[in-house]
Amino acid sequence: MRSDPTGLHRVLDGAAVLPQAADRLDTRPDLWPDEVRVRVERLNLDAASFRQLHEAYGDGDKVRAAVLDIVESRGKMQNPLTGSGGMLVGTVEEIGPASPLGLRVGDRVATLVSLTLTPLVIEDGLARWDGGSEQVPCDGYAILFGRSIAAVLPNDLPTQLSLAVMDVCGAPALTRRVVGQYDAPVVAVIGGGGKSGSLSLAAARAAGARHTIGVVPTEAEAARLRPTALADEVVVADARDPIALREAVTGAGGPADVTVVCVDVPGCEGGAILATAEGGTVVFFSMATSFPAAALGAEGLAADVTMLIGNGYVPGHAEYALSLLRESAGVRALFEARL
Amino acid sequence: MRSDPTGLHRVLDGAAVLPQAADRLDTRPDLWPDEVRVRVERLNLDAASFRQLHEAYGDGDKVRAAVLDIVESRGKMQNPLTGSGGMLVGTVEEIGPASPLGLRVGDRVATLVSLTLTPLVIEDGLARWDGGSEQVPCDGYAILFGRSIAAVLPNDLPTQLSLAVMDVCGAPALTRRVVGQYDAPVVAVIGGGGKSGSLSLAAARAAGARHTIGVVPTEAEAARLRPTALADEVVVADARDPIALREAVTGAGGPADVTVVCVDVPGCEGGAILATAEGGTVVFFSMATSFPAAALGAEGLAADVTMLIGNGYVPGHAEYALSLLRESAGVRALFEARL
Repeated sequence: MRSDPTGLHRVLDGAAVLPQAADRLDTRPDLWPDEVRVRVERLNLDAASFRQLHEAYGDGDKVRAAVLDIVESRGKMQNPLTGSGGMLVGTVEEIGPASPLGLRVGDRVATLVSLTLTPLVIEDGLARWDGGSEQVPCDGYAILFGRSIAAVLPNDLPTQLSLAVMDVCGAPALTRRVVGQYDAPVVAVIGGGGKSGSLSLAAARAAGARHTIGVVPTEAEAARLRPTALADEVVVADARDPIALREAVTGAGGPADVTVVCVDVPGCEGGAILATAEGGTVVFFSMATSFPAAALGAEGLAADVTMLIGNGYVPGHAEYALSLLRESAGVRALFEARL
Repeated sequence: MRSDPTGLHRVLDGAAVLPQAADRLDTRPDLWPDEVRVRVERLNLDAASFRQLHEAYGDGDKVRAAVLDIVESRGKMQNPLTGSGGMLVGTVEEIGPASPLGLRVGDRVATLVSLTLTPLVIEDGLARWDGGSEQVPCDGYAILFGRSIAAVLPNDLPTQLSLAVMDVCGAPALTRRVVGQYDAPVVAVIGGGGKSGSLSLAAARAAGARHTIGVVPTEAEAARLRPTALADEVVVADARDPIALREAVTGAGGPADVTVVCVDVPGCEGGAILATAEGGTVVFFSMATSFPAAALGAEGLAADVTMLIGNGYVPGHAEYALSLLRESAGVRALFEARL
């Protein structure tokens, strides 16, 4: 059987499904030519997944047993109830001759694709994990496909800080690309005080925005964002109130040519559309975004705006986000305060 | 109180919500300066709304009473259970001096914004409607706001045909715009045999596509689409099977630089992403699109594709779609077969 860059060749289900949708993956350590094997040192379980396991089992030993059972039976760490996974940190152990990932043996990497599609074998019974936190020390191995993305961890930053940046690195990369399609645009970032929001503000300015607006939900968050100088204007508004959001952005130098939505609460579509100028672009990074609310909202408002589904993958996204953190004391301060 | 182009000034709820989200709208016939009043001749109820009413009440007289009750109590036709509305046909009766819509008194128009946000008064008790169909003959009036969109019905086409085109006119307009951003791209339309799909195929070719691919679910539909020559290649594939869709599009001259998704079934995100070339664009017009499935799917596949939420409004969309129908015997034949 030939390998497929999506990992299709390791799906053991009867039907042809992608690895993420599969019940069970083939975890054999031998590599297909375009694969990479990583020696795992730690799993970072997705927050929703860990919460479900913790609530279901309570006791740490039982949580550990449940994770071991999932990984053994599925060949990947995908919580069957939440559907979510997490990511891992490890060291490159072997590289197939046709791997396009550009990694070298010995590179210390974090995977930027989900554990839900990554073949995984745990070899130490998770003996060093008490089952009480999302951070899982682990010895074992994982397989990366031709299209799996892994980023080399930099030497000059603490691992936790790098991982926090990589977790949201798609947002600044796509913001840079969209802002670059306009001539000196006004950019509003809804949720500008958060991790993806602060990086997006930094990316917008670096990409040529002439005016940046950070919208935050509380005065306390505004007080944290203002001293970073990441935004030319910081305003407080409830992003779920479309009129309030429009007024806040308009009053702060808007409407925006580019609006970036980084807040994980439902109901922000209408306000984001109204805060955006005709011919502008809204980039939705929030997983709470409702596709019909955005599509029907723009139509109902006769708003000629381009609306993007925030794709978490842009080539070079991890390196770019890390460079923003290194160059911006404001971004770094916000991230370190959240670690 | 000053008027707002969104119609905010006619919301009677206590909280500041947009008209679509409001419980009740002000239906006074006097116009704010940017408004237009339309004499209504027919309502087209949204299919989901009519189905719910029909199943709940069965009897036509009771369905009629329910519609009258909704419109009287809410000031708009928005089914409280489905949340949906429909559209209307009527004649422009009065135009405020500041209306930006470009209409003239006497124009026969269809509204392209939903009834869910349109102030409406029914004056004939729906006496000419038996409650048995989505088509509701009606005398009354409706109000258009500064940002409400209405299209003048052409004289050279049957009303039902024009309405069917206008119902999906956002898809070809946005397809034209996206195709025009590429140099002679390959364009795949998933659901190319349907209304929005066939118009999108015609728009793609008119906008400079060098090769068009129509994907349909059955051989019967392929047999209807092939003779229209709207697509250079017509292929049969289940759009919910990502690998099958990728293989079908690749085998028909793909991958596509632009993929347009026009099928209203869930689960097409992965296949659409895989059928699209790096640097390409996927336009999702299906209301069954899952935002997280698209965002996480592209990230999991490390696919550098731009993903657009299909905004149903693009300036000039109705006129453009009608021109495609007039110029393309193939589009017209497909539409007439579906009336």
